Amino acid sequence: MAKDNSKMVDSITAMDEDFTKWYTDVCKKAELISYTSVKGCMVIRPYGYAIWENIQKILDGMFKETGHENINMPMFIPESLLQKEKDHVEGFAPECAWVTYGGSEKLEERLCVRPTSETLFCEHFKDIVHSYRDLPKLYNQWVSVVRWEKTTRPFLRSREFLWQEGHTLHATAQEAIEETERMLNVYADFCQNDLAIPVVKGMKTDSDKFAGAERTYCIEALMHDGKALQAGTSHYFGNGFAKAFDIQYSDRNNKLVYPHQTSWGMTTRLIGAIIMTHGDDNGLVLPPAVAPIQAMIVPIAQHKEGVLDRAYALKDELKSVCRIGIDDSDNSPGWKFAEYEMKGVPVRIELGPRDIENNQCVVVTRHNREKTVVKLDEIAKVMPGKLQEVRDSLYNSALENRERRTYTCKTLDEITNALEENGDGFVKAMWCGDEECEDKVKEITGAGSRCIPFEQEEISDKCICCGKPAKKMLYWGKAY
Amino acid sequence: MAKDNSKMVDSITAMDEDFTKWYTDVCKKAELISYTSVKGCMVIRPYGYAIWENIQKILDGMFKETGHENINMPMFIPESLLQKEKDHVEGFAPECAWVTYGGSEKLEERLCVRPTSETLFCEHFKDIVHSYRDLPKLYNQWVSVVRWEKTTRPFLRSREFLWQEGHTLHATAQEAIEETERMLNVYADFCQNDLAIPVVKGMKTDSDKFAGAERTYCIEALMHDGKALQAGTSHYFGNGFAKAFDIQYSDRNNKLVYPHQTSWGMTTRLIGAIIMTHGDDNGLVLPPAVAPIQAMIVPIAQHKEGVLDRAYALKDELKSVCRIGIDDSDNSPGWKFAEYEMKGVPVRIELGPRDIENNQCVVVTRHNREKTVVKLDEIAKVMPGKLQEVRDSLYNSALENRERRTYTCKTLDEITNALEENGDGFVKAMWCGDEECEDKVKEITGAGSRCIPFEQEEISDKCICCGKPAKKMLYWGKAY
Repeated sequence: MAKDNSKMVDSITAMDEDFTKWYTDVCKKAELISYTSVKGCMVIRPYGYAIWENIQKILDGMFKETGHENINMPMFIPESLLQKEKDHVEGFAPECAWVTYGGSEKLEERLCVRPTSETLFCEHFKDIVHSYRDLPKLYNQWVSVVRWEKTTRPFLRSREFLWQEGHTLHATAQEAIEETERMLNVYADFCQNDLAIPVVKGMKTDSDKFAGAERTYCIEALMHDGKALQAGTSHYFGNGFAKAFDIQYSDRNNKLVYPHQTSWGMTTRLIGAIIMTHGDDNGLVLPPAVAPIQAMIVPIAQHKEGVLDRAYALKDELKSVCRIGIDDSDNSPGWKFAEYEMKGVPVRIELGPRDIENNQCVVVTRHNREKTVVKLDEIAKVMPGKLQEVRDSLYNSALENRERRTYTCKTLDEITNALEENGDGFVKAMWCGDEECEDKVKEITGAGSRCIPFEQEEISDKCICCGKPAKKMLYWGKAY
Repeated sequence: MAKDNSKMVDSITAMDEDFTKWYTDVCKKAELISYTSVKGCMVIRPYGYAIWENIQKILDGMFKETGHENINMPMFIPESLLQKEKDHVEGFAPECAWVTYGGSEKLEERLCVRPTSETLFCEHFKDIVHSYRDLPKLYNQWVSVVRWEKTTRPFLRSREFLWQEGHTLHATAQEAIEETERMLNVYADFCQNDLAIPVVKGMKTDSDKFAGAERTYCIEALMHDGKALQAGTSHYFGNGFAKAFDIQYSDRNNKLVYPHQTSWGMTTRLIGAIIMTHGDDNGLVLPPAVAPIQAMIVPIAQHKEGVLDRAYALKDELKSVCRIGIDDSDNSPGWKFAEYEMKGVPVRIELGPRDIENNQCVVVTRHNREKTVVKLDEIAKVMPGKLQEVRDSLYNSALENRERRTYTCKTLDEITNALEENGDGFVKAMWCGDEECEDKVKEITGAGSRCIPFEQEEISDKCICCGKPAKKMLYWGKAY
């Protein structure tokens, strides 16, 4: 933790001035990432990676509780394998990175670095699934994937990113659909409970489905600047892949039938969502569940006798109730305050000679800078509630931001006006179901369709675009 | 766990008949791996991956305890970056997989899929290390790497494999050397305590060093068939990479100097080592520390009243002391015994109506099939000791095998004779330090140099090959 004391924490661009620059500043100044000479790829630095490890740990536990097993597939996909499912290859081939040489020898067949692994899982399923007794298969893997994007941004869109991909195979369509919905709910619960990010659950329109899927479910979140971010998706494939890969099993009547399939994924993009949902002009604000350090002790006048000893003892007392840190470096308290605000540590505990005299410490919550004086013999008892309070407060602010920025519209003009007058946000509006109208709304207003929410409202009975009978209410918005 | 009852567990090739085929049989029948259409790459199936997760969890804890942080680097290395350190690129370029296209566009510069990440870490270190206050940097990452091998075998040598790579940067050579040795000791402790595999600690000869290293330390294990396996390596780079990448820091006297560097790695190869050290003709034998299931309850006559209920209760009682499983499928007990022997589950607990009447169960240890009758109200207390006993017994057998197969030789003929008469094994013999003699010993006897062990013995004062004064005792052997 030793830092050059002369170097104060650099300030960052203000959010309102330039949100994009603010975002990049936070990524760098909070030491989440570092750029590399590999265009579109980044180093996820220890502080950023520790957030990802916490995300992994919680999600992995939720996957295992719902009966999933981890597995590991190769990172390469032979071109011929990728081509087996027509829609799938059309969707992914344009953004594949291709390996053409092994050492000095040209490969007989090109291999793509996996952009996603449905094809590899299908090949494996064909190998191991023969009878109804072999089903379901509930698999997940934690790996990185590559998509050759033109424009990239840390966490939000990078050529390589870390993710988990669940792949499951089921005897019936109904079971597969239930799985798709179950995992969407797991994602939504995780976002709301652990990341304190409210999400809208829904289904993508046909034009926005995953390549090869029959249905794509998604959760959509609204960032601080009013742009939408897709936080997780869950796909139902029907038996399309099974047919393309000739996966069959003999059912209870000894008849050969095709199984039904799903996949679902969440990525390091979630870290981007955290930054843009909770961050402020002082930097990152982390939800306690995934914060590498949940509370940081900053000793005041630490050269004075007894201060550091009491601070170390406090750390020991707190280590069983939270992830606790202490900064005993020779930097000034002011420097430390700014540093851990930048890094979004949810709680700061100040402890100086006078506090010790009064058997107390000062607890400061990062997101609202509220100070509370807490008795030292109560702090261990108080801390879990304090962290829960932080989570609730973050969630409520984010929800309040979303509600303030959600506009119910009946005409295209209303959309344009709402976005212009109140800034970007979610638009709720009716839709007839035609792709043409979907495209036109985006063209005219800038807001694309985000999802068909499970919670439908009948705003009007007409499509906002063509005026024909409306089939669904959609969420629309500009997206990351 | 439901299986087709008609399909009994297939038997595997006997070890003595064909060790190589036995090994592959175990990999497949214990459901550790599955082949894919990507040559030289494999699926690590859930049971195999769960072993790797346990290995990761223990090692990751040991790395964090010794002050290391996890980080994540890109999987691609631009060709020009790989070329910056001369020895390094010479060693790795011939086995790199090269990405030449992104989508339909040819890349301006080829990218190799990382075979190892020293170059990427150096680029990052140059970015973030400026002052002595920034040192040491103690980093690790858990990723997969690719090396374009001609001949491949599951876990032992595959084109893609999973590993961890530690990369550290230090102010002084001494600190870096201490780190290199510290991590070798961490590796050795892990192998011996957790995997129950005895290892020889030593240093590679110059001809066998990692490309770019000043020193390569290693741990060498002897497999059941007498072949040697390198289980982990730890490299000291001096400041060679720092110079090649122009990494400098200002020291306490404000002078610009080059830092010193290390790297160290362990891979999924460890799973191969476990199979070949402990396995037998009935399949896999797992050391308890990394076994996905440490004890499996097999109910006997489970259709009889009360048997399954008592078995479930037993599972509940044991779940806080070990990773406990239960097979309540309708397969026969005999099928289950064979299945969990194949999968190497360390302990089987049989529980039938008569056992329940007598308030007891039958505990069978996988590696020696020893049966013990244990009172049901004592089993939870007994289990940790039982697992420790298994570990100790596995370790002692492996050590006994190694000692029986370690030959002390003073002439080349003695080596040839020992290997022919007693089978492959470690040879201890003196060496003058010349690469020529090293090559000649291998050429004549088939046994290559494995390492210069830290524990030296003076077997004679002459080189076993040229007869000139000996400098070191070496371990020699045929290797995986």
